[in-house]
Amino acid sequence: MAIFNNKNKEERELGFGTKNYNSRVRFLDHDGKVNVHRAGMGVKNIDVYHWLITTSILSLITVIISSYILVNLIFAFAYYMIGAEHFGGLDAETPMQQFMNLFFFSAQTITTLGYGHIYPVGNGASIAAAVESLLGLLTFALATGVLYGRFSRPRAHLLYSNNILISPYKNVTGIMFRIANMKQYELIESEASVTITLNNPETKRREFLNLKLEINRINFLTLSWTIVHPVDEESPLIGLTKKDLEERDAEFIILIKAINDTYSQTVYSRNSYKAEEIVENVKFKPLTPEADKRGRLKLIVTDIHHYDAVKN
Amino acid sequence: MAIFNNKNKEERELGFGTKNYNSRVRFLDHDGKVNVHRAGMGVKNIDVYHWLITTSILSLITVIISSYILVNLIFAFAYYMIGAEHFGGLDAETPMQQFMNLFFFSAQTITTLGYGHIYPVGNGASIAAAVESLLGLLTFALATGVLYGRFSRPRAHLLYSNNILISPYKNVTGIMFRIANMKQYELIESEASVTITLNNPETKRREFLNLKLEINRINFLTLSWTIVHPVDEESPLIGLTKKDLEERDAEFIILIKAINDTYSQTVYSRNSYKAEEIVENVKFKPLTPEADKRGRLKLIVTDIHHYDAVKN
Amino acid sequence: MAIFNNKNKEERELGFGTKNYNSRVRFLDHDGKVNVHRAGMGVKNIDVYHWLITTSILSLITVIISSYILVNLIFAFAYYMIGAEHFGGLDAETPMQQFMNLFFFSAQTITTLGYGHIYPVGNGASIAAAVESLLGLLTFALATGVLYGRFSRPRAHLLYSNNILISPYKNVTGIMFRIANMKQYELIESEASVTITLNNPETKRREFLNLKLEINRINFLTLSWTIVHPVDEESPLIGLTKKDLEERDAEFIILIKAINDTYSQTVYSRNSYKAEEIVENVKFKPLTPEADKRGRLKLIVTDIHHYDAVKN
Amino acid sequence: MAIFNNKNKEERELGFGTKNYNSRVRFLDHDGKVNVHRAGMGVKNIDVYHWLITTSILSLITVIISSYILVNLIFAFAYYMIGAEHFGGLDAETPMQQFMNLFFFSAQTITTLGYGHIYPVGNGASIAAAVESLLGLLTFALATGVLYGRFSRPRAHLLYSNNILISPYKNVTGIMFRIANMKQYELIESEASVTITLNNPETKRREFLNLKLEINRINFLTLSWTIVHPVDEESPLIGLTKKDLEERDAEFIILIKAINDTYSQTVYSRNSYKAEEIVENVKFKPLTPEADKRGRLKLIVTDIHHYDAVKN
Repeated sequence: MAIFNNKNKEERELGFGTKNYNSRVRFLDHDGKVNVHRAGMGVKNIDVYHWLITTSILSLITVIISSYILVNLIFAFAYYMIGAEHFGGLDAETPMQQFMNLFFFSAQTITTLGYGHIYPVGNGASIAAAVESLLGLLTFALATGVLYGRFSRPRAHLLYSNNILISPYKNVTGIMFRIANMKQYELIESEASVTITLNNPETKRREFLNLKLEINRINFLTLSWTIVHPVDEESPLIGLTKKDLEERDAEFIILIKAINDTYSQTVYSRNSYKAEEIVENVKFKPLTPEADKRGRLKLIVTDIHHYDAVKN
Repeated sequence: MAIFNNKNKEERELGFGTKNYNSRVRFLDHDGKVNVHRAGMGVKNIDVYHWLITTSILSLITVIISSYILVNLIFAFAYYMIGAEHFGGLDAETPMQQFMNLFFFSAQTITTLGYGHIYPVGNGASIAAAVESLLGLLTFALATGVLYGRFSRPRAHLLYSNNILISPYKNVTGIMFRIANMKQYELIESEASVTITLNNPETKRREFLNLKLEINRINFLTLSWTIVHPVDEESPLIGLTKKDLEERDAEFIILIKAINDTYSQTVYSRNSYKAEEIVENVKFKPLTPEADKRGRLKLIVTDIHHYDAVKN
Repeated sequence: MAIFNNKNKEERELGFGTKNYNSRVRFLDHDGKVNVHRAGMGVKNIDVYHWLITTSILSLITVIISSYILVNLIFAFAYYMIGAEHFGGLDAETPMQQFMNLFFFSAQTITTLGYGHIYPVGNGASIAAAVESLLGLLTFALATGVLYGRFSRPRAHLLYSNNILISPYKNVTGIMFRIANMKQYELIESEASVTITLNNPETKRREFLNLKLEINRINFLTLSWTIVHPVDEESPLIGLTKKDLEERDAEFIILIKAINDTYSQTVYSRNSYKAEEIVENVKFKPLTPEADKRGRLKLIVTDIHHYDAVKN
Repeated sequence: MAIFNNKNKEERELGFGTKNYNSRVRFLDHDGKVNVHRAGMGVKNIDVYHWLITTSILSLITVIISSYILVNLIFAFAYYMIGAEHFGGLDAETPMQQFMNLFFFSAQTITTLGYGHIYPVGNGASIAAAVESLLGLLTFALATGVLYGRFSRPRAHLLYSNNILISPYKNVTGIMFRIANMKQYELIESEASVTITLNNPETKRREFLNLKLEINRINFLTLSWTIVHPVDEESPLIGLTKKDLEERDAEFIILIKAINDTYSQTVYSRNSYKAEEIVENVKFKPLTPEADKRGRLKLIVTDIHHYDAVKN
C-alpha cells in the first residue's frame, strides 16, 4: 500500500503540531473557524470586543436589550433608594408605579433624552442622574465603536463548491474545487494556498503537506476561480484514492487571501474539505455567464457547485 | 493577417475566464466598475454596508430622510394606538393634529432631543418611548460609522487622459496614456499594470495578455505620469493597427496601485480603454508647470488630455 | 575564554547604538516596552492620544471622571458669575445650594440631557449653555474615537514561556522558548526574529547579533510554537554557558509579527529574556491537547511554561 | 569642472519630470509638503475631508465655531419667519430678543439638548425643529469621524538634524544627517531612501539620482539613526563641493518609512535639504544617553542637531 509520494515532499509547519490524534479531528470548520479551545488563563482568555464583533446579529441585539433593561433596573433601584420624594413630577400612587416611573426616568437619562417632566430634586438624586448620563454617553460611544467595527470588518464572502473533485486534468488527474465572490464588491490580487493533513501509518504521526497549485494567484476574482492541484509525479498524493484518504483521516486546509477593493483591505478566507467530501470521476460544469442588454455579464454563483460525470 | 506576436507572450489569468463572448463586452467601466452582476444567493448577495459606503451622496441623503420620516410615522402610529390620552401636553383638537403632534414627539424622542412639552404618561407610552430612544441611539451609532466609513475610505482620485495614443517612442512605437492626481494629497510609490484582452480569431477564445511597461513604478505622482508600453519585438501587439484591435474587440485594462500619503493607505484605481478610444499618429503635448512667486509649481491637471499631430 | 563565534556573524543594527553602558541595562521590558525615555522637545514629546489609547482602563476612567467633575465645576462657576437670577427653576435657598444646582445644570447641559427644570434666561446664560453643549458634543466625539481606538487597536495577546531553555536539540544544543495565543481569535502567517545583545569584552562595545531560527514562520498559531535557535557551528553562541551570558549582560530580544485574522491586521509582539532567565539542562514538556466530544482540541495555554530535567 | 560621476549612475523617476526650471525650486518643504498646486478641475480638486484632517487645530476650531454660529443664525431666521407666536415659552419683549431666544432655541435643538422651556407649537415650527435635530445628529456624526480621523491618522513624528553634513567617513567622505523619534511610541522596521535632484549643466535638464545608503533599514528607532551616503568611487557626488551643489540648485529628498508599533500602521515621513543647508568639515557629536536609576535610558532628542568641527 502506498503511503504517499516522498519525492519533493514539502512538509509544512501549520502550528497544529504533529501528534497523531486518537479520535478523528476536523481542524477547520466549513466557516473557517479553527477547532481549538484555548483555556488556562481564566478571564484573560476572554476577549469581549472580539465576541461583540464576531457574534451573530441576534446575540448582539439580545445583549443590547438585556443590558439596557438591566442598567435601567439598577438605576431605578438606586433612585428608589434615594427616595421618590427627591424627584419632581413623579405622579404615582403605588410604590410599584413609583418604581416604574423611576425606571422610565432612568431610560430618559441614560439616553440623554431628558424630557424633564420627571426631574431630580436635591443633591443625591442629581448626582445619580449626572453619573447615569455620563455612563450613557460612554456606553453609547462604545456601541458606536462596536457597530462600526462589525460593519467595517474586512471579510471575504466567498462561496466554495460543495465538493472537492478528483477530475481528469490535462494528461494527469487534478484535485480541484471552485470559489466565487458572493457580493458585488471586487476582490483583487487573490492568492490561494492548499495544505493536506493526514495520518502517516508508518510514522504514526500526523503530517501536513503543501499542495502545489497550477495557478495560485489571479488579478480579479470577477467570475469564478477553479483552484487545481495537479496530481503529477511530484505530487505527494499520486496513486491515492478517496478511500485511502478517508482511512488516513485526510483534510484539505484552504487559505485564500485577497484585497477587498472597496476598502483596500486585505481579507482572508479559510475553509476545509474532509476526505469524505471528495467526489471522484466527475468534472465541473463550465459556467456560462451571458452579457445582458446593458452589457453586464450575469453570473449565478451557486452554479459553481455543479459537476458532471466523466464518461470513460 | 497577423494575429499577434506569440514570442514572449505572457498570458495572464485575470479571473474573467477565456470564453469568447457572443456580443461585444466592456469588462471595466471608465469609473473602474467591473461589468459583472453576481446573483443566485438571494439576499446573501446583498451587502447593505457596501451600498451605503459607495452610493452617491444624493442617494444617501434620500435614504436617510425617507427612513427618518418612515420610522417617525411608524412610532407616531404606535403612540396613536396606545392612545393620545397617555401623552401629557398634547394639545390637539383633531385626531389628525393629535397624530401630527405624536409624529413630532417621535422625532423629539428618536433624536434624544426631548423638549418635554409633550411627554409619556403611563407604562405603555413610556416603554414605547424608551424603545424609540434606544433605537435612535443605535441608528445614530450606525450612521456615524457609515459616514466615517464613506469619508475615510481609501481612494485614488486619478484623472486618466481621454485617449490612449499610439505614438512614436524612441526607435519604435509606444502605446501610452497619461494620469494625474486630481487632489492635493500626495500619492507615493505608485505602480501600474496594463493588460490587453482581445479575441483570438484562430482559437476563438478570449485572451488576456500582460503588456510590459517602460517604467511601472514611480516614487511621487506629483505632476503627471505617462505610462508607456513600447511596441517592440517582444510586444504581442507588434504590427497591429487600431482597426485590427477594434475588430478583435480589444480592451486595455489598467490597474494603478499607490499609497495615499495622508492616511498611509494603499489605494487602487482601475480604468479601461476600448480600441475605439485609441488615437494614432499623435503625441502628448508636454506639460509646462511653472513656479509661481511662492515657489510652488502650478499644474493644470486637465492638460494631460492634450495631444498634437505627429508630422511625418 | 571564548568571546563568541565570529564565523558567519551577522551583526544587526537595532537602533540602540553600540555604546557599552556603564550599568546593566534591560532594553525591553517583559511587556515589550522599550526602556527609553525621549525628552528635549518640551510639550512636543507628549502625545495625548497615544497615552489615552495605551494607558490602563483604571487610569482612563479616573481621567474621564476627574475631567467631568472639573469641567462641570468650571461651568458652574461661570454660571454662578453670570448670576443665579438668570436661571429659571433654580430653587435654592443658600448660595452653596445655588452653586450645586448650577453644577447639576452644567452636567445636564454638557451631556445634552437637558431636563429643562432648570433653564437659562437671558443672553449671557443662554450663550454659556450653548457653548457648553457644543463642547460636550465635541468632547464626546473625541471620547468615541478614543474608546474605538483602544478597543480596535491591533494587538497580539501572546503568552511567552517563563524561561528560555538551553536544551538538547537534534545533534546539537538549542536555545528555545515557547509562545501561545491566549485569545480565541486566530493568528496567521506568524513570523519570529530573535536578536541577542551582549557586551563584547574585547572591543568593549555592545553588540547586537541576529540568531538564526530553525523555523521562522508558521501558517497558523493554533496551539503553541517552540522557537528554536540551533547552537551549531554557525551560531555566535557556540560554547557559551549561562554564566558567560550573565557576565556579558546578555539579553535576547524577540519580535513576533502575525496577522490577526478577525481584523486582518498585522500585529506585533515584543519580549525579552535576560541571561538570568535561562534554564539549562531541561527540555519543554510536550503539550497534549485532546479532542473533546465536540471534536474541539482543548489547549491549556499555561502548560507552555512547563519543562522537565534532561536525564544524562 | 566635474558634472557628476556617471559611473553606476542610477537615475530615478520621482514623478517631478525632468524639466530645467527657470527659477530656483524647492520640491519639498521642511514639513514634507510637496510644492505643487494642482488645478484645472474646479471643485473636483477640492477635498474637504482631507482639509479637515490635515489643517491646524486652530483652523479646525475656527471652522467649527463659525459653522455653529452660522447654522444657528440660519435656523433662528427660519424660526423667526415661521413666526414667534409658534413657539411656547418665548418670553421676549422686543423682536431682537425674540430672534436671540430663537437662536438659543436653535442651539438647544441642533445639539439635541432640548431643555424644553422654549418649544415648537404647530406643524411648521415642529417640522423645522425635527429637521434641525436630524441635521445636528448627522453633523455630529461627521464631526466624530473627522476628529477620530485626525487623531488616529498614522504619522511619524521624526526630528531631522538641522543640517546635512559632509564628514569624514571610514576612508572616504560621507554625506549624512540624523533623525530621532520625538514621541514615546516605538517605530520599528524603519527604512530610508535618499534622492538628490540637481541641474545638469551639460544636458540643461534636471536630474534625479538615487543615493546609495550605508544602512537603509533598522529594526528599532529607539535612540537616533545617522543615515549615511558614502561618497565613494560609485557615488555620483564624488568630487563635488557644497559650492558646486549650490550652483546646481541641488536638493536632497528624503523618504522615511516605518511601522508605528502602537497602531501597527505604516507611516511615512518626508523631508528635504537644500545645498545651502550643507555644513562641511564637521562631524556629528555622539549621543550619550545614560541609564537612570530605574534602568531607563534618557535621550535628549534635540542633541541630534549638534556637531563639532573636524580637526585636520
